[in-house]
Amino acid sequence: MDVHPAREAARRLIERPAFQWFVIAVILLNAAILGLGTYERWMSEYGTLINVVGWCTLAVFVVEIALRIFAEGWRFWRGGWNVFDFVVVAIAFVPSGSASGVLRVLRVLRVLRLLSTVRSMRTVVAALVTTIPGMSSIALLLLILLYVSAVVATQLFGTTDPEHFGTLGQSLLSLFQVTTGDDWANVVRAATEEHTWAWAFFLAFVVLSTYIVLNLFIAVAVEALDREVEEDNAELAEEVEQAVDDSTATILAAIADLKQQVAALEARLEVPD
Amino acid sequence: MDVHPAREAARRLIERPAFQWFVIAVILLNAAILGLGTYERWMSEYGTLINVVGWCTLAVFVVEIALRIFAEGWRFWRGGWNVFDFVVVAIAFVPSGSASGVLRVLRVLRVLRLLSTVRSMRTVVAALVTTIPGMSSIALLLLILLYVSAVVATQLFGTTDPEHFGTLGQSLLSLFQVTTGDDWANVVRAATEEHTWAWAFFLAFVVLSTYIVLNLFIAVAVEALDREVEEDNAELAEEVEQAVDDSTATILAAIADLKQQVAALEARLEVPD
Amino acid sequence: MDVHPAREAARRLIERPAFQWFVIAVILLNAAILGLGTYERWMSEYGTLINVVGWCTLAVFVVEIALRIFAEGWRFWRGGWNVFDFVVVAIAFVPSGSASGVLRVLRVLRVLRLLSTVRSMRTVVAALVTTIPGMSSIALLLLILLYVSAVVATQLFGTTDPEHFGTLGQSLLSLFQVTTGDDWANVVRAATEEHTWAWAFFLAFVVLSTYIVLNLFIAVAVEALDREVEEDNAELAEEVEQAVDDSTATILAAIADLKQQVAALEARLEVPD
Amino acid sequence: MDVHPAREAARRLIERPAFQWFVIAVILLNAAILGLGTYERWMSEYGTLINVVGWCTLAVFVVEIALRIFAEGWRFWRGGWNVFDFVVVAIAFVPSGSASGVLRVLRVLRVLRLLSTVRSMRTVVAALVTTIPGMSSIALLLLILLYVSAVVATQLFGTTDPEHFGTLGQSLLSLFQVTTGDDWANVVRAATEEHTWAWAFFLAFVVLSTYIVLNLFIAVAVEALDREVEEDNAELAEEVEQAVDDSTATILAAIADLKQQVAALEARLEVPD
Repeated sequence: MDVHPAREAARRLIERPAFQWFVIAVILLNAAILGLGTYERWMSEYGTLINVVGWCTLAVFVVEIALRIFAEGWRFWRGGWNVFDFVVVAIAFVPSGSASGVLRVLRVLRVLRLLSTVRSMRTVVAALVTTIPGMSSIALLLLILLYVSAVVATQLFGTTDPEHFGTLGQSLLSLFQVTTGDDWANVVRAATEEHTWAWAFFLAFVVLSTYIVLNLFIAVAVEALDREVEEDNAELAEEVEQAVDDSTATILAAIADLKQQVAALEARLEVPD
Repeated sequence: MDVHPAREAARRLIERPAFQWFVIAVILLNAAILGLGTYERWMSEYGTLINVVGWCTLAVFVVEIALRIFAEGWRFWRGGWNVFDFVVVAIAFVPSGSASGVLRVLRVLRVLRLLSTVRSMRTVVAALVTTIPGMSSIALLLLILLYVSAVVATQLFGTTDPEHFGTLGQSLLSLFQVTTGDDWANVVRAATEEHTWAWAFFLAFVVLSTYIVLNLFIAVAVEALDREVEEDNAELAEEVEQAVDDSTATILAAIADLKQQVAALEARLEVPD
Repeated sequence: MDVHPAREAARRLIERPAFQWFVIAVILLNAAILGLGTYERWMSEYGTLINVVGWCTLAVFVVEIALRIFAEGWRFWRGGWNVFDFVVVAIAFVPSGSASGVLRVLRVLRVLRLLSTVRSMRTVVAALVTTIPGMSSIALLLLILLYVSAVVATQLFGTTDPEHFGTLGQSLLSLFQVTTGDDWANVVRAATEEHTWAWAFFLAFVVLSTYIVLNLFIAVAVEALDREVEEDNAELAEEVEQAVDDSTATILAAIADLKQQVAALEARLEVPD
Repeated sequence: MDVHPAREAARRLIERPAFQWFVIAVILLNAAILGLGTYERWMSEYGTLINVVGWCTLAVFVVEIALRIFAEGWRFWRGGWNVFDFVVVAIAFVPSGSASGVLRVLRVLRVLRLLSTVRSMRTVVAALVTTIPGMSSIALLLLILLYVSAVVATQLFGTTDPEHFGTLGQSLLSLFQVTTGDDWANVVRAATEEHTWAWAFFLAFVVLSTYIVLNLFIAVAVEALDREVEEDNAELAEEVEQAVDDSTATILAAIADLKQQVAALEARLEVPD
């Protein structure tokens, strides 16, 4: 199908590296603005300037997205990253009432446009996402362990140490903290001072959770490494097969040569008759 | 051998995905109930409801297990997971006297039925278990280091810092905490402030235990990776051997062809005689 | 050369699994005794019994070592583990004067005889030791970083935060603690509150040391994995070469067959002459 | 081109192992001196001696660098390590005014000459540096996550918990600390006690950052391992190709032999004519 020349022009403009670098620059500028916006001192002095620059960057984003929608038409909505860009920018126009604070926060997400705009970041994010399914079932196992242990901990230590295990929620957070190995000795202190046998429970939990987390990490590492090894092996296979093919060719040539010789011999035998 | 039609029906029912999804749903419901049960507030208000639902889920489990026993007969007791399911459910019927608290706790284990019922979880658990023997001897090494260091620490610092090294048990726990790297500087503070040379002991312990734990992790990782590499290599070998076989076939064909030619030549020589 | 029958008998006895299991059992018993020895309460009650059992285990060790020396003769002193066993046992007989405390501590080392007596432990220890050279230069790099940073930290923060960076020794310990990631934020707090630019120094140190430690671990992991991969590849190479040899053999057979055919043809040509 | 004999002599001297060992010894001595220099006690007693030795080591460095510049001429400035050595030594001669403290600190960098002088250290440093590009984009992802989260945290918790999230700088440092997993529970306590929903934010951050850091580490590990695997595969390929070539040679020899036989047959047929 043929495209309207204006659309064609828009696409060409969008695909210009210069244009993309410009967008990235604006995103970084916007990030800096958002950072400055958190300093009361700066806001009170240069508040208006900061806001103006902020709105300019937003304007640039709007124009850019509009251009892309115009250029790609309905196909624009197919790309997940495109939708992401659109939403992140659109947020700025949601009429903010009481929730203005939340929106001010969400505006920070515009910085994430770096992920969608810089090619190498896209690939990294994609790579990270692909590793998630490989670890999902181990992660689920960890969640089950956390939940079961949290219920048990609440029943056993809820009264002894309400600060850490008073409710199921607190137990989950405390045990998650133990899982990250951060200051776990203090988390379990109160409970273990009351009931010495509590050590058995917590030691079992620490060892088990550490072991599962370890296997979670290994699952990710193995997946990444397996990809590399498979690539290396593919190269290797190609190389070796090449060698085999070459050898086959040489041998076949030698045999063909021999066939000709025999054929010549046959021809010579024709003569006497 | 032929099976009683009822058994056959039972088996077919059990193997229905719908049935298994239903069981999983009930397990999750049961888990939620157990969680709610830890909140005094909810219990006081909806206690009866929660208990009723709890007993219903239990009834479902009983029926399910009964069905499976009926369907599989004595073979049921062969499967470790089956026995696990049976025990976990049976616990609920142990006459609880003074130990009622313990039983209430053990009831939480029913949530673990997720591991036995969800296929992918089974495989993950199996995989984790298979990696244990590979690390057993390094784990044993760590235990020996812990024990020896604990005895030494108790003898050396038992009087200086009774809180951490007063008894062999405390020393073992303190050194285990140091091994996990959690707040170890505080654990050893008192002892090192008294005797500066204690630093030598604790630094040696930190380095040694970290090194052993590291190798424990690596042992697991290497085992997992080795499995992958072996698979990849098997594929590779197959590929290459295929290539070699093809080349052999081609060459043999060429030789066979040549043989025929020579045979023809021989035949022609028959004539003159 | 022929051996004195008594020596022969001794060797046969030593190599008996039963004998070795007995020794291991005695080592474990000795370990338990050493553990009990740390509890005042037990010592006051069963002190004499514990001491008696302790001396019995020692006696067993002495007899065992004597047997081994008698059986293996001067070759005994060649084995590092043998010397280790001898020294560990010999310690008990050093006349303890003022240093009796130290000797009481050293006696615990007898538990380490598990490493020298249990085969699998020996291999594990050997494996761990073999990985050390591979990481020595990275470890040295870490030491240099620690030393340089410690000198700098002492010069910069020695007066600000004498508790952590007062002397070179304290700085080394503090930075080692930071390297292990234990509570580093508190270690650097005082210094950073005084001079904000100190953050640059500590962030650089945290990132650098973490990165070096990470590479230290990776070096060990890669070495272990490389060993596996090389083994797998060796198998693979063997397999493939086998395939190539088979194919060669088949082809050569076919050619040899053809040669005979031609030879037959040649023979037939003899006749007419 | 021919070199001036003096230069030639200089180069030969520099390349002498003895000379290099001497330099390394001087660097170590210098390091020790710098360490002693941090102890007031030693300085007050042996200050002059320490300074004298310090200046001697510096003199040695100057002579060594001068020799190397003389020997290698303008090519000296090509080597990065050479320039590094020159700068590190030159620092000592910068006229120190008020900045004398800073210079005293920079003098410690001379210890880093160990990296440039010891061969194995050079290779290690080079290896570490080569792994950096492989992780740059994941590191960038981590920085983006840190920045966005810091801005959000400052906006949300700046007033609640000014100590940790008062300014963007503090938020960045606090979140970096959370990323290193050091005492993160305490960092987030104040904020989470005020707004319970804050847990969602911090849990998401902990999980995300941990996951990115994990992938950062894996990226380094995979790169290192991939290098090994590729080497192993290269060896393997060579081996296999060797096997294939050998088989080809044998087969060709057999065919050549057969050709001769046929040729002989042909020759015999000449005769009758």
